[in-house]
Amino acid sequence: MANITKKVSWSSRGDESGGGERTPLLNGSEEVRYTRQLSGDGGMFHIGRLSTVDLEEDMTSDEDAGCPKEIPHNEKLLSLKYESLDYDNSENQLFLEEERRMSFLGFKCLEISRWVICGLIGFLTGLIACCIDIAVENLAGVKYFVVKQNIEKFTEVGGLSISLILWAVLNAAFVMVGAVIVAFFEPGAAGSGIPQIKCYLNGVKIPRVVRLKTLVVKVCGVICSVAGGLAVGKEGPMIHSGAVVAAGVSQGRSTSLKKDFKIFEYFRRDTEKRDFVSAGAAAGVSAAFGAPVGGVLFSLEEGASFWNQMLTWRIFFASMISTFTLNFFLSIYNKKPGDLSSPGLINFGRFESDSVAYNLYEIPLFIVMGAAGGLLGALFNILNYWLTIFRIRYVHRPCLQVMEAMLVAAVTATVSFAMIYFSNDCQPLGPDQSEDYPLQLFCADGEYNSMATAFFNTPERSVRSLFHNPPGSYNPLTLSLFTLTYFFLACWTYGLTVSAGVFIPSLLIGAAWGRLFGILLASITPDGSIWADPGKYALIGAAAQLGGIVRMTLSLTVIMVEATGNVTYGLPIMLVLLTAKIVGDYFVEGLYDIHIKLQSVPFLHLEAPATSHWLTAREVMSAPVTCFNRIEKVGTIVDVLSNTSTNHNGFPVVVPVAASDDMGKVCGLILRSQLIVLLKHKVFVELARSRLTQRKLQLKDFRDAYPRFPPIQSIHVSQDERECMMDLTEFMNPTPYTVPQDTSLPRVFKLFRALGLRHLVVVDSENRVVGLVTRKDLARYHLGKHGLEEMQLAQT
Amino acid sequence: MANITKKVSWSSRGDESGGGERTPLLNGSEEVRYTRQLSGDGGMFHIGRLSTVDLEEDMTSDEDAGCPKEIPHNEKLLSLKYESLDYDNSENQLFLEEERRMSFLGFKCLEISRWVICGLIGFLTGLIACCIDIAVENLAGVKYFVVKQNIEKFTEVGGLSISLILWAVLNAAFVMVGAVIVAFFEPGAAGSGIPQIKCYLNGVKIPRVVRLKTLVVKVCGVICSVAGGLAVGKEGPMIHSGAVVAAGVSQGRSTSLKKDFKIFEYFRRDTEKRDFVSAGAAAGVSAAFGAPVGGVLFSLEEGASFWNQMLTWRIFFASMISTFTLNFFLSIYNKKPGDLSSPGLINFGRFESDSVAYNLYEIPLFIVMGAAGGLLGALFNILNYWLTIFRIRYVHRPCLQVMEAMLVAAVTATVSFAMIYFSNDCQPLGPDQSEDYPLQLFCADGEYNSMATAFFNTPERSVRSLFHNPPGSYNPLTLSLFTLTYFFLACWTYGLTVSAGVFIPSLLIGAAWGRLFGILLASITPDGSIWADPGKYALIGAAAQLGGIVRMTLSLTVIMVEATGNVTYGLPIMLVLLTAKIVGDYFVEGLYDIHIKLQSVPFLHLEAPATSHWLTAREVMSAPVTCFNRIEKVGTIVDVLSNTSTNHNGFPVVVPVAASDDMGKVCGLILRSQLIVLLKHKVFVELARSRLTQRKLQLKDFRDAYPRFPPIQSIHVSQDERECMMDLTEFMNPTPYTVPQDTSLPRVFKLFRALGLRHLVVVDSENRVVGLVTRKDLARYHLGKHGLEEMQLAQT
Repeated sequence: MANITKKVSWSSRGDESGGGERTPLLNGSEEVRYTRQLSGDGGMFHIGRLSTVDLEEDMTSDEDAGCPKEIPHNEKLLSLKYESLDYDNSENQLFLEEERRMSFLGFKCLEISRWVICGLIGFLTGLIACCIDIAVENLAGVKYFVVKQNIEKFTEVGGLSISLILWAVLNAAFVMVGAVIVAFFEPGAAGSGIPQIKCYLNGVKIPRVVRLKTLVVKVCGVICSVAGGLAVGKEGPMIHSGAVVAAGVSQGRSTSLKKDFKIFEYFRRDTEKRDFVSAGAAAGVSAAFGAPVGGVLFSLEEGASFWNQMLTWRIFFASMISTFTLNFFLSIYNKKPGDLSSPGLINFGRFESDSVAYNLYEIPLFIVMGAAGGLLGALFNILNYWLTIFRIRYVHRPCLQVMEAMLVAAVTATVSFAMIYFSNDCQPLGPDQSEDYPLQLFCADGEYNSMATAFFNTPERSVRSLFHNPPGSYNPLTLSLFTLTYFFLACWTYGLTVSAGVFIPSLLIGAAWGRLFGILLASITPDGSIWADPGKYALIGAAAQLGGIVRMTLSLTVIMVEATGNVTYGLPIMLVLLTAKIVGDYFVEGLYDIHIKLQSVPFLHLEAPATSHWLTAREVMSAPVTCFNRIEKVGTIVDVLSNTSTNHNGFPVVVPVAASDDMGKVCGLILRSQLIVLLKHKVFVELARSRLTQRKLQLKDFRDAYPRFPPIQSIHVSQDERECMMDLTEFMNPTPYTVPQDTSLPRVFKLFRALGLRHLVVVDSENRVVGLVTRKDLARYHLGKHGLEEMQLAQT
Repeated sequence: MANITKKVSWSSRGDESGGGERTPLLNGSEEVRYTRQLSGDGGMFHIGRLSTVDLEEDMTSDEDAGCPKEIPHNEKLLSLKYESLDYDNSENQLFLEEERRMSFLGFKCLEISRWVICGLIGFLTGLIACCIDIAVENLAGVKYFVVKQNIEKFTEVGGLSISLILWAVLNAAFVMVGAVIVAFFEPGAAGSGIPQIKCYLNGVKIPRVVRLKTLVVKVCGVICSVAGGLAVGKEGPMIHSGAVVAAGVSQGRSTSLKKDFKIFEYFRRDTEKRDFVSAGAAAGVSAAFGAPVGGVLFSLEEGASFWNQMLTWRIFFASMISTFTLNFFLSIYNKKPGDLSSPGLINFGRFESDSVAYNLYEIPLFIVMGAAGGLLGALFNILNYWLTIFRIRYVHRPCLQVMEAMLVAAVTATVSFAMIYFSNDCQPLGPDQSEDYPLQLFCADGEYNSMATAFFNTPERSVRSLFHNPPGSYNPLTLSLFTLTYFFLACWTYGLTVSAGVFIPSLLIGAAWGRLFGILLASITPDGSIWADPGKYALIGAAAQLGGIVRMTLSLTVIMVEATGNVTYGLPIMLVLLTAKIVGDYFVEGLYDIHIKLQSVPFLHLEAPATSHWLTAREVMSAPVTCFNRIEKVGTIVDVLSNTSTNHNGFPVVVPVAASDDMGKVCGLILRSQLIVLLKHKVFVELARSRLTQRKLQLKDFRDAYPRFPPIQSIHVSQDERECMMDLTEFMNPTPYTVPQDTSLPRVFKLFRALGLRHLVVVDSENRVVGLVTRKDLARYHLGKHGLEEMQLAQT
């Protein structure tokens, strides 16, 4: 079936390709389709190759590929530009020698270093969260103070339009700063960063996602966008920030700052780095929501393919340190040192631990709310999906992006102002007033405008008000209007070129309609008193809405429970999230998954599609494969590496079978990055003979080059050197995982996913290479409306 | 290196053997040692084969092997009697055909069934917990009432020795019932069951551990032992109970009751069953401690090798339902329906969520307490280890075991009585008195004996008193005496032939010395008020002691946090548990691990020993291996299966290499259980030809035989039939995982552990079988004091 050709041959599909094939094409796409008959009982499959190449982009090296300005807007594509992480150690001779040389004490030291690093990650993440919180508090405080003064001044004399303009201009100014740094300096810092971190933890190398520059832009950006009054939260970006901190700290150097501390050199490989990044992401969640366990579960849910107890425990340590650090510094900032009551950026406040938190007969109501959350979440996601496609097509220039962000900021201020202006929901200003900026506006003295509590405030405070303000603080009309406007504002805002999260807006929308639901319930039931607490419904609504949008499950339940500090609400929150997920999934995927798909990232789900047992490795694999001999000519290697569109960044090393035209028997696997280092150091057989003193290549040389291996173009190989030979034996992984070609797709998938592989060699019964399975080969298959569907691979 | 002999040959080590080789030996052991030179840079290794065969035991089938009356008391042995679970699906043609026939809707239905089963597991586990709680409450209530009456009667007239005798007799009577049912009916129900469940989740098939009978005996046993006043808890057994419930419900039938509901037939295999058992264990933890997240983490920490999001979410669902069910029924029992404040069997009660829960400078103190807990835990474990060895040697007859249990019960009563009698710690009986049975004894009127609060009570209530009674309720002398006596009582009690857990006694010991520590701290510091709350130190002490004994980490932190209902204590509890683990591990392993080792279970840890990179599959594997041809003579198969001591329960199927004496090329793997079914149904090539109407063997036939496959002896094969041939092609797993023989041990280990394998075929470069790696081959290596050590394999 599989057509096996010569040893060095070009793959028909450029999976795991190092760069882009630069075929000059007009804007648009030229599809080269061909069909093939599968050997199973399946029908015809379309396997496409779609070349939409961004001409402006110059992909020079693996990591420096940069963020594409244009992303394909067809989510049925898988981009070939993403590479996988090498989570599987290449156990070559150098590696084994190092491991064997290391004493038990050495391993102990490494283990201690890992703990120290995790502690540092937690500490720094907590510190960053603290800085963001304080900066936002102060900036937003100044802004609201100025606007409030202005409104008060003009309420009496008339001319509130001036206040509106002031508010809008202040917002737009903040947002402009935030958008400019993101759009012009580091587009990778846009959005919440959660989709990117999900992909990274899944094993996809997203370019520039864990750079120092991204962190700086992210932190400044999120401060600006929250202070700018956008319908965004500062929680999502914390997860990204934590991940960047982890990637930086664990490597003991900064490539951007050109500073190498010469520590933690052992951890300079993808396996270790990815583990630390999971700790960082967990620390970020922990700092954002005061939810250390939720953070661990988030990391595991998104990232871990293989459960490792020590790793999990370290992740938990980082999370704990992170929330503790934040709490500690905030307590000092709030002049109550030692008061450990604000463990996260958002605190839901204490829910009265009434012994009767909820009744059994309320559970169906909660489930109905979950379904509503699922529906509203699906609507949100569909609207945002259309908007994103629109943005991809028409708003891809940085200046346009900045202008759109400023427009949204101004519109947000205007809408908020209008809502407050036309609302006549006045509430008495009690003595235990928790509002920071109560707006009197047209209310009587001693009263304040209730609509302003929701709009004239940072979203975190608004959520807390909706959860905890006593019954009667809001009238139903205020809440309905607020829900409606905030829903569309939040939907418009997500995907702007600013650094911002979607957690808090979702919670806020949900809390608003949840509270509305509670108020209506109390008014229509004869004995309203038992439904007395609308805050409870606000909490359930918030969970439902957030679940409907992001579709996280276990981790979100735990995060919500930890944020409320009340274990009793666990069951209703879980049921609500589950319902929201089921209902929402019926219509459309979760928001993060939509954005991942729109980026055409080859994301591996946890299991192969259920109905894929009839596919085998033979059908799934890429064939023919470029292979090398144990001792290979330098020229051949250089040629293969230069032709970036036609290899998988990993090459089986084979022993030729005598008197046969077939592929050789597999005896190892070598990575593109390893070959690059070998070429750079000119590890040629002939040179080794002539220069006896030549230093033997060590693992350190590979580590120093990690993670930004130079492109093949930058390595000069003379014509003479091209005739030399390279001995790959010592550097290849001599025991790559292999599967027979009859292995079913789910089995291949399980092996691949469980071990976090990058390349899986498919062999025949004689141990000869017949194909190679990479991430894209597996990610292509997904369950669509009409059963199993196959996605197409695109060059961009 | 590896000496390859004829196709059908006897393994030198009987790993994964089906039964015991019955060589009549005297009591003791005859060691057959031989040495071999390893090819790495290592020295000489002793590979032993130790035959200590229990003569009384008749191992008839895989599952019916029964619990050994005698276990080898050398923890440097690995028993050959334990088999592994087949967590890896055998993807043979039958399986693939079934999967391929199934529609997407079919998979959906299966998924829904899984959820229903998990819901049922949670519900039933919660119900069982509720029954245990109510039964213990009532029995203990009656007992304490009778004894209290008696003591009050005799305090005045003198002759308290009669009360003592009454108390001791009552205790001994309860314990006798509990010990008799365990010792005579189901020895597998002894202890907490956590070690057994740990092993099961690790992938080891422990005989009779998930039987219905075990559950019944466990539940009755734990009620008796707690009511009998032993220093035990009812929490550990809940985990075992949940696991049994899960194993029963998920199979849709009970082999013991000979009742097949004809449902859930799809789940009748090890893969699915093990997943459900993890859910059951989690539900058990959840019901025991009101800790659903802790339950999930427990299951993951102990069991999951491969993180599966949907599975985790189902486990969480089962846990939630379990705690909710318990809570709901208890609230009805307590006549406060809807009051959801008792989510677990043990509730630590509400810790005052004071804003200043603890101060930064208290953290070093907590760490000191953690170290103390580690030391005391290690002492506990060492004492218990000696005691267990003593018991293995001298107390192995059921009647002796019952007598020992009764003795402990009587001694516990006597010691308690003496402590109460000689104590003169009288406390005023306040209006908000929470004691159920305040003993006045020799105290003045309106006062009660404080020592009696600790001893004259179920341990759960004592823990709560220590956590929450106001400062001054206990004087330091009472606490020190109590700690001392309870420590030794608990240590003596654990390992008795009764069904009982060690969690609560550990918490109680720790809470006592923790509170003592708090009191002393308050008295020696100048400003005692800041250390005012001894309850906080009781909590930390409890965590330290428990951590020092069981050495659980992440899950225990979460369980403790959920049980206290206060997230703020997360960091100190984590630090304390971490310290206790580090300090304790320096001396001796955790209690459960000690007991697992004493049972010589081949337990796979999460990672290969750090310094094992120089070992390769070649050194680790068992060789030579018994192989079969694709079409094999029935006689050969019967002979191989009958010789139970010499195979691995799994046989590579090979294609012979022409003109060669070598092993054939691997083309599949077939299990002993599959061959048994084939033989039973006489699936012979000749018969298929003659009887055209013969029903084709289906997967259902394998499922019906699961899990108690008949022994080979019970299958009659005539002399004519012995000459027939069997075609294994359709039934073997055609794509077993293989590794080259140079693969390093950590790499083999990772593959084996991540995929939950049972057999891993080692092949040479020609794909010829050279060996087989099973669980025991990997479990043998461990890090000892002097680097890597190898355990010996024993027949018993």
